[in-house]
Amino acid sequence: MRPMEQLPSFEIAQLGESRHVSPLADYGFIREDDRILYHTELRDVKACIDAGKEPPTFERAGARSRIYFDPRQVKAGIVTCGGLCPGLNDVIRAIVLSLYHHYGVREILGFQYGFEGLVGRYWHEPIQLGPERVSGIRGRGGSILRSSRGPQDPKEIVETLVRLKINMLFTVGGDGTLKGARAIAEEAKRRGHEVAVVGIPKTIDNDILFVERSFGFVTASSEARRVISAAHVEATGARNGVGLVKLMGRESGFIAVNATLASGDPNYCLIPEVSFRLEALLDSLEKRLEHRGHAVIVAAEGAGQDLLETATGTDASGNRKLGDIGVFLRDAIRDHFAKRGMELNLKYIDPSYTIRSLPAEASDAAFCMLLGQNAVHAAMAGKTNVVISSWHGEFTLVPIDAAVTRRQKVDPNSWLWGSVLSSTGQGGLE
Amino acid sequence: MRPMEQLPSFEIAQLGESRHVSPLADYGFIREDDRILYHTELRDVKACIDAGKEPPTFERAGARSRIYFDPRQVKAGIVTCGGLCPGLNDVIRAIVLSLYHHYGVREILGFQYGFEGLVGRYWHEPIQLGPERVSGIRGRGGSILRSSRGPQDPKEIVETLVRLKINMLFTVGGDGTLKGARAIAEEAKRRGHEVAVVGIPKTIDNDILFVERSFGFVTASSEARRVISAAHVEATGARNGVGLVKLMGRESGFIAVNATLASGDPNYCLIPEVSFRLEALLDSLEKRLEHRGHAVIVAAEGAGQDLLETATGTDASGNRKLGDIGVFLRDAIRDHFAKRGMELNLKYIDPSYTIRSLPAEASDAAFCMLLGQNAVHAAMAGKTNVVISSWHGEFTLVPIDAAVTRRQKVDPNSWLWGSVLSSTGQGGLE
Amino acid sequence: MRPMEQLPSFEIAQLGESRHVSPLADYGFIREDDRILYHTELRDVKACIDAGKEPPTFERAGARSRIYFDPRQVKAGIVTCGGLCPGLNDVIRAIVLSLYHHYGVREILGFQYGFEGLVGRYWHEPIQLGPERVSGIRGRGGSILRSSRGPQDPKEIVETLVRLKINMLFTVGGDGTLKGARAIAEEAKRRGHEVAVVGIPKTIDNDILFVERSFGFVTASSEARRVISAAHVEATGARNGVGLVKLMGRESGFIAVNATLASGDPNYCLIPEVSFRLEALLDSLEKRLEHRGHAVIVAAEGAGQDLLETATGTDASGNRKLGDIGVFLRDAIRDHFAKRGMELNLKYIDPSYTIRSLPAEASDAAFCMLLGQNAVHAAMAGKTNVVISSWHGEFTLVPIDAAVTRRQKVDPNSWLWGSVLSSTGQGGLE
Amino acid sequence: MRPMEQLPSFEIAQLGESRHVSPLADYGFIREDDRILYHTELRDVKACIDAGKEPPTFERAGARSRIYFDPRQVKAGIVTCGGLCPGLNDVIRAIVLSLYHHYGVREILGFQYGFEGLVGRYWHEPIQLGPERVSGIRGRGGSILRSSRGPQDPKEIVETLVRLKINMLFTVGGDGTLKGARAIAEEAKRRGHEVAVVGIPKTIDNDILFVERSFGFVTASSEARRVISAAHVEATGARNGVGLVKLMGRESGFIAVNATLASGDPNYCLIPEVSFRLEALLDSLEKRLEHRGHAVIVAAEGAGQDLLETATGTDASGNRKLGDIGVFLRDAIRDHFAKRGMELNLKYIDPSYTIRSLPAEASDAAFCMLLGQNAVHAAMAGKTNVVISSWHGEFTLVPIDAAVTRRQKVDPNSWLWGSVLSSTGQGGLE
Repeated sequence: MRPMEQLPSFEIAQLGESRHVSPLADYGFIREDDRILYHTELRDVKACIDAGKEPPTFERAGARSRIYFDPRQVKAGIVTCGGLCPGLNDVIRAIVLSLYHHYGVREILGFQYGFEGLVGRYWHEPIQLGPERVSGIRGRGGSILRSSRGPQDPKEIVETLVRLKINMLFTVGGDGTLKGARAIAEEAKRRGHEVAVVGIPKTIDNDILFVERSFGFVTASSEARRVISAAHVEATGARNGVGLVKLMGRESGFIAVNATLASGDPNYCLIPEVSFRLEALLDSLEKRLEHRGHAVIVAAEGAGQDLLETATGTDASGNRKLGDIGVFLRDAIRDHFAKRGMELNLKYIDPSYTIRSLPAEASDAAFCMLLGQNAVHAAMAGKTNVVISSWHGEFTLVPIDAAVTRRQKVDPNSWLWGSVLSSTGQGGLE
Repeated sequence: MRPMEQLPSFEIAQLGESRHVSPLADYGFIREDDRILYHTELRDVKACIDAGKEPPTFERAGARSRIYFDPRQVKAGIVTCGGLCPGLNDVIRAIVLSLYHHYGVREILGFQYGFEGLVGRYWHEPIQLGPERVSGIRGRGGSILRSSRGPQDPKEIVETLVRLKINMLFTVGGDGTLKGARAIAEEAKRRGHEVAVVGIPKTIDNDILFVERSFGFVTASSEARRVISAAHVEATGARNGVGLVKLMGRESGFIAVNATLASGDPNYCLIPEVSFRLEALLDSLEKRLEHRGHAVIVAAEGAGQDLLETATGTDASGNRKLGDIGVFLRDAIRDHFAKRGMELNLKYIDPSYTIRSLPAEASDAAFCMLLGQNAVHAAMAGKTNVVISSWHGEFTLVPIDAAVTRRQKVDPNSWLWGSVLSSTGQGGLE
Repeated sequence: MRPMEQLPSFEIAQLGESRHVSPLADYGFIREDDRILYHTELRDVKACIDAGKEPPTFERAGARSRIYFDPRQVKAGIVTCGGLCPGLNDVIRAIVLSLYHHYGVREILGFQYGFEGLVGRYWHEPIQLGPERVSGIRGRGGSILRSSRGPQDPKEIVETLVRLKINMLFTVGGDGTLKGARAIAEEAKRRGHEVAVVGIPKTIDNDILFVERSFGFVTASSEARRVISAAHVEATGARNGVGLVKLMGRESGFIAVNATLASGDPNYCLIPEVSFRLEALLDSLEKRLEHRGHAVIVAAEGAGQDLLETATGTDASGNRKLGDIGVFLRDAIRDHFAKRGMELNLKYIDPSYTIRSLPAEASDAAFCMLLGQNAVHAAMAGKTNVVISSWHGEFTLVPIDAAVTRRQKVDPNSWLWGSVLSSTGQGGLE
Repeated sequence: MRPMEQLPSFEIAQLGESRHVSPLADYGFIREDDRILYHTELRDVKACIDAGKEPPTFERAGARSRIYFDPRQVKAGIVTCGGLCPGLNDVIRAIVLSLYHHYGVREILGFQYGFEGLVGRYWHEPIQLGPERVSGIRGRGGSILRSSRGPQDPKEIVETLVRLKINMLFTVGGDGTLKGARAIAEEAKRRGHEVAVVGIPKTIDNDILFVERSFGFVTASSEARRVISAAHVEATGARNGVGLVKLMGRESGFIAVNATLASGDPNYCLIPEVSFRLEALLDSLEKRLEHRGHAVIVAAEGAGQDLLETATGTDASGNRKLGDIGVFLRDAIRDHFAKRGMELNLKYIDPSYTIRSLPAEASDAAFCMLLGQNAVHAAMAGKTNVVISSWHGEFTLVPIDAAVTRRQKVDPNSWLWGSVLSSTGQGGLE
C-alpha cells in the first residue's frame, strides 16, 4: 500500500444537489457519507488518525434514496473504446437494463466505434438501445457497439452531446479512454452543457490504479491457462521442447502472474515489472533442458522492453508501442541453441485475439452486471468525471484524475510475486 | 456489517515462540503485528476509536521471517472431509508443494476418506505425498485423498497423530470439519501432543463466517449458469415451459444469487434467507406464463424449508437434513397447473453432483494455490485451531471458534439481493 | 446387415417432371440415376446379382441440374417437432439459407410449436424467415421455432397448407414426426394440393432406421461423457462409491454405447437391446465394490424395461411410456446394500435436459448444414414423403415408409457391443 | 471416386497361417473373406462386373476366431511419430488395453520420441506399458510416448526389434511414418525377423488416401471453429475489421472446409486444392469491406503456395516445406489497403499448436478406442505392412503401399466444395 502522502484526492465531482426521489425500492440504499477505507491494515489507519489526518477513503458506489436527475429527462449515451475485452456486452446490457427498469429511462443511445461514434463527420449512426436490443448479447464476445482506438477532439464530441441533448455518458475503456472522458467532462463544463460522465474501467490487464478488479480479467486468465496447457503438452511432447506463450500485459503482468499460479506449468514467468538479463534466461533455460528436457515460458507483452531497441512511439490510443517480446525471445532462443548446436523444439503461441474476443465467464458476467448497475446509480446521482471501481469487495467511486495518475503494477516485493517465483522455480534472472 | 459488540474474539492460538529462521526468501514477509481491519467503512472504524476500543481485526496470513517449527522435524498430515468441491486437489497440491519446496519438509501423509483415515480401525492406509504424487492432479475433479462425511472420536484421532508423530494437520472441510478440527486441537492439547491444526475452509456454498471467498465457488457458479442456460432453452422451447433448477445452498443462497446475476435468465431466485409463500409463487408463475409463455426458476436447496414438513434430523456431517425443495416445487407446480387445467411443460434439473465433481476453473485454481501456501505458512509459524481465510482481498487467519459461530448468509436487505430482485423481476412473494 | 428379402422398397415419390433449370452452379450435380448401395460387403452385393436381382440401393441426395419447382413460386414452411436436440437451429438456418441463397426463394415461414403451429385453432402465428432472422442462431441451443409433442389432424394441417399456399414443407423430427409428415403428404395428395414434404430425421438416440447418423448425436455423446466423468469422480471420492448415470435411449442404446467407449470409465453399460437380471447386476456390483471400492453404471432410459412393472401406455408423441430405470436402479441398489448392511455412497445423475438443450458441437453443426442443404435440394426436385439420410458417408433419400418400419438398434452380436463389453468388463448379467 | 484402373492393389500381407484359437468371445468375429466395397455407387460396381472384373474391395478389419500369434509369445512395441494430434494417448491406451485384456499379452513396450526411440544410439529408454500406466491418460493432450519428426535407418530399427524380440510393432503417424513402417517391415523380412508392422494413420489434416476418417480431425475442426469465432468477433468489432485465421492443412484443406461449414462465419476459405489469384482476393476483400465493413478469411497452411516464392525444400519428416501463407496474406492485405489509403484493422490468428495439443473430444476418443482395438486384432492375425482404416463406416485394412501413393484431397468439383462456396459466398477468385 502506498503511503498516504502520495495519494491523490478522492473527492467526487457532482453536477448538483440530489433533489429527486429515487424510484428504486430500498435494498441497501447507501448513505451519502459512506466511505470505504483505502487501507486494510489497522496500522496504516491508526497512523493517519495519530497524525491528526482523516484516513484516505473512497466514496461508496450504490443506489441512493435521492437522485440528481429526473429520470424522465435523462438521455443517456454509451460508448466502448479501445481493444476488445470479455464482458463488454455484459456491461452494455447491465447499463441499459438498469436505466430502463430501475429508473424508467427510455432514451438510450449506443455510439458506435468508440469515440468516433461521437464525432459527426465519421457518420456512424447511433443505435437506439433497450431491453429488446440487449437481450441475448451476454453470451457473445466483442461489443455490439464496436470499438476504435484513439482520442477524438473533445470539442467535437461535446458538440454532439449538446446536439443530441445527451446528459449522461457512459464510457467503457482503459487509461486512454478515461483521459478522453475527463476531457469531455471538462469541455462540457466549459460549454455549460450539463452531463454526467461515468467511466467503466476496461482493462484486460487489470492495470488501472485504484481499481481492484477489472471485468474480463477472470476470463482472460482462464483462457491463458488453457493456452499454457497447450504449450506444456507441446514442450513435453518433443525432445528439448520449449513452449513459449506471449500473454497480454503491456504495463502490468497480472494476467501472466495469475495464469501461472492457476496453471502451475510455467517454468519462467516474465513480466514488465521485473527486468531480466537475456543471457541469464538463456543459461537457465539451457540448464533446464539438459536436466528436464522441456520448459514452458510465459511472457507478458510488456516484459523485457529494455532488451528491444525498437520499442518506440505510441499507438493510436496513446499507449507506448511495444517491440514484440514474444518474437524476440523466440528468435533469441533459437539462435542461442543453434549456436550451441543443441536440438530445440520451440513452439511459440500468441493467443491475444482469441482471449480478448471471448464471451465473459460467469464470474465476470456477474461482476459486469453489478458494475453496470453501479455506473447507472452514480450517473443518476449526478456524479461525473468518475470511474466505477471495486475496492475490498465493495463498489466505489474514483475520480478519473486519480485513476489515471499511473498504472497498477505487480509489486516485485510482494507475496504474490513470491508465490509465482516459488511456483516456477525460475530463480533470479538478473 | 455486524456491530462490533457481537463479534467473537479473533485471537489466534500459537504453539510457542517462533525461534527458527525461515528458509524462505523475503517476498513480502508479514510482520507479526499485521492486522487486517474487519470493517471497510470509515464510520465503523471511527466509532470504535471514539469509544476507546481497538477496531476489530484479523491477523494477517503469510510467510514470516521466523517460524516455530524446525522444518526437518515436521511430519505433516492432510485430510479432506465432507462433500466434493472443485479445487480439492489444487489445495492438496499447494500444501504439498509449499511444505516440500518452501520449507524442505519431506514427511507428508495424506489420510484417506476424511476423518476415518485418522482412525486406526478403518484400516485406510495413509498415502505418502510429494511433488511426484501431486503432479498432474490439478486438472482432475474430486480429491485424491477421497472423503467421507461425519465426525470421528477426537481421542482416536489424536491417538493416531501421536503414534505417527504428526505435528501438523491440515483439514480441508466445512463447518462440521472445522468443529472436528477444533476438537482434535483441544484433545491434542489435553494429551500434551504438540500439533498445529490448520483448517482450509471448503464450502461450495460460500457460507462460512468471516471467510469472504471459498474455493470452488467460482467454478460452481459457472457450471450453475450453464445449467440455468439449459433450463432457459427448455423453457422457451415449449408452450408454458418452465425450467426448474435446484442448486446447492443449504443455509445460504450465494450460488443461486451469483448464478442468477451471471445468467440473467432466471425469473425467480429462491434462497434460504428469504422465505416465500407457495401460493404467491404459483400465482406469480401462472401470470408470467400467461403473459410470457415461459419461466425459469432457480431454487437453492435450503430455500422454502418451512414449506416442507419432512425437514427433520441431521446427516452424518451434522448438517440439518433438508426436505427436497426441488422435488417439492416440481410437484406443487404440476399439481397447480393440473388443477387449473393449464398446459405445463416443466423440466426439472438437479445438477449437484455434476457441479461439485468438476475440476477447478483457473480463478479457483490460483486461489487454491495461495490458500494452500498460506495454510503452510501458518502451520510453520505454530498457529493452531485456526482457519485460513481471505478478507478484503488479503489472506487472514480466523480462530475456528469464530468461524463456526454461525453461517455466512445473503443479507435480504443488501444491494446484492436487490440486484437479484431487479434481475429476475420476481417482486415480493410473501 | 439385414438380408435383402426383409428390406422395404426404397423408391422415392416425386411430384412431377423436373422441367426447370437449377440456378445453382455445378459443383457435383448428381445424376438422376445415382444410387448408393445399401450393402458395403461385396458378398452381399454378389449374392443379389447372382440371384438375378438388383442390389438394394438408396437414391442419392444432392443438387441437380434440373429441378421441379420454379423457385419464384415456392412458398416453404419449416416445423420442428418433439423433444429438443442439439442442432435444431443449425438445420433451420441451413434450410433458410439454401432456399434463399441457392434458389432465390423469398417466402419462407417458420411454424411454431411443432405441428400445432400448422393448426389454425392454436393461434401460433408463423414467423417470416430469412437470412437476417437466422443470423446468429447457430450458437444457441433449442429451436427458435419451439416445439411440441404429439400428432395433429392431417386434415387441419393440409387446410393450413392450402390456405397459405405452402408447396414445400420441411419437418424436423423423429419417428412420430415422420409418420405425421407421411400422413400430411398423403392427405395433401388426396386433396390435390401439391406439396413436397421432406423430413429431416431428428433423433438424439440415433435410432431411425436407414439413417446412419443423426444430428446432435455427437454433441449428446460428448456431454454424456462429461457427466460420466462426474459420476466417476463421485464414485472414486467415497468409500463404496457408485456413480449411476441415466442417459437417453428409449429404444436404442447408441448414446450409452458411444459415451461408454469415449469415456472408458463405466463398469456397467445397460441398454434396451440387451436384457439383464437385476440379481446378476447387484451380485456383480457387490463383488466389484468389495474388490475395487467403486463403480460407474450407465443405463440408457429404455434399459431393463421388463424389470419395471409400471411400463405402460404411450406419451403424446406415441412413444411407449417408460418406467424410470434410473430411479428404479438407484432404489434397488440402495435396498440391496442396506439389506446386506454394507456401506454405499450412491450418486444418481439424470442429465437429459442439460444434454438435449446444448448448442451443436462443430461436427454436428457442419453435418446440420449439409443435411439442411440436401433437404432443400430434394424438395426443389419435387421429392416428397421422403427423409434426408446419410449412408456410408453419402447423403441419401429414404422413403418415410421405409424409415418408420422399425427402430435402428445396437446389435448385441456386433463388434460394437463386444467393444463395450471389453471396455466395461461387465461380463454377462443374464 | 477414382476409376478402378488407377487403383493400387489392396491385398494385405500376412506373416503366416492363423493356427491359434483366439481367446476372445465371439462378438461379431469377421470372416476371412469379408471384403468391403471401395465404391458406394451401384453404377461403379456394375461396371466392374460387366467388364468381368472383381469390384475393388478392402479387407475388413476386426477380431477373428483364429489368430496367427500365440499371445504368450507376443512382445509388442508402440511408437508415435510426427506432430502432435488429439487422440494419441487414446490410441496408445486402446492398444495396450486390447493387447492386455483381450489377448493376455503382458510384454508391451512404448518407444519414446518417435522412431528415435527405436534406435539404440539415442538412448531413449523404452517404457513398460500396462493398464496402470495408461490409466488416466485419455483426458490428456499430446503423447505419453512423446514424438519426433523424421525417418531413421530401418536397419538400426530392425536391429533393435531383433535385440528386444519385438514381434509386433504399432506405428502411429502420418505419411512419412507409414513409409518408415513399410521400410521396417521390408527390412525385417529381409533379415528374417518376424514382426507384424501395423500402422495407425495419424493425420490431423485427414489427408491419407483410402482413410475416410482420421482421429483428431473432429477435435481439430471443433477448436478451429472456436478460433474462427474469435476472428469474427474481432472483425466485427472494428471498422474495416479483417479476421485472418491460418489453419492446418499442408496438402489438403479438409479442416478449413469443415470448420467453415461448422462456423458459417468465414467469407473466404482458401485451400491447397483450389488456387486463387492474390489480386482477385484483394479486390474482392476491398469490395466486401466497402459494403459490409468486415470480413473473415480462413486459409489452410498449404493454400496459395504458388504465390510464395520461398516454398522450397522438405522438413525432417519429408514433408514439403511451406512458405507461411498466413504471414504472406497478412502482409499483402496490409500493403494493399495502405496503398489504397483505406483503414484496415486486421487481426491474424495462427492457432496450430493450441489445436493439435488438445485432448480428444468424445467422438474422437470413441473412434480411437476402436482404431486401437482393430490394430491389435490385425496384428494378432499376423497382418503386416498394413494400415487400419475406416471406410463407409466400417473398419478396414489397407496396404501401406496403397495408402502412401498420394494424398487424399478435397475435390474442387464436389458438392462439398460447392457447399463451402455457397457458405462463404466468395465466388471465383481466379
